[in-house]
Amino acid sequence: MARVVVDVMPKPEILDPQGKAITGSLARMGFDGLSVRQGKRFEVDVAGGITDERLAQIKEAAEKLLANTVIESFSVHIEED
Amino acid sequence: MARVVVDVMPKPEILDPQGKAITGSLARMGFDGLSVRQGKRFEVDVAGGITDERLAQIKEAAEKLLANTVIESFSVHIEED
Repeated sequence: MARVVVDVMPKPEILDPQGKAITGSLARMGFDGLSVRQGKRFEVDVAGGITDERLAQIKEAAEKLLANTVIESFSVHIEED
Repeated sequence: MARVVVDVMPKPEILDPQGKAITGSLARMGFDGLSVRQGKRFEVDVAGGITDERLAQIKEAAEKLLANTVIESFSVHIEED
C-alpha cells in the first residue's frame, strides 16, 4: 500500500527535555559527541494511491492533528519502496 | 553538522492505540482511507563526522536506549542534506 510519512520535530528554539535526557545517558554509556532531539514519526497508509488531493489532506491533518505548530515543525514526504 | 536519524516504530503485530485514535479522528474529519501508525524519530547530531564506529555506537544506542525491541523495530540511516 502507498505510504506517506509525517515527521514532527520540536522547533530548534524549543527545549527538548527528552532529547536532553537521552544525550546525557549516551554520554554516560561512553558515547560522547552525540546530541539527540526526539520527535514523532507517523506512517500513513493511503488506500487507493497517492494523489495531490490525498497529499493535501495529509498536510491538513499534520497541521491540525499531528503537530502542535506553536512548538513543532513537520515535514510530509512519500516513502519510496 | 553530520546527522543520523533513528526511526522507531511499533512492530506490525503490536497494537498501536495512539495510531488507532488518530486514524479515528481522521475519519471524523472526513479523511477516510488513511491509516496511521505512530512511532518516534530521533535526530542524532554527530560531532566530528560519521564513521563506521560512530554508526555502530548509534546502533547500540538504538537497541539499548531508544527502542524497546520486544515491541518496537528501529532503523538507522544517515540524513542527506
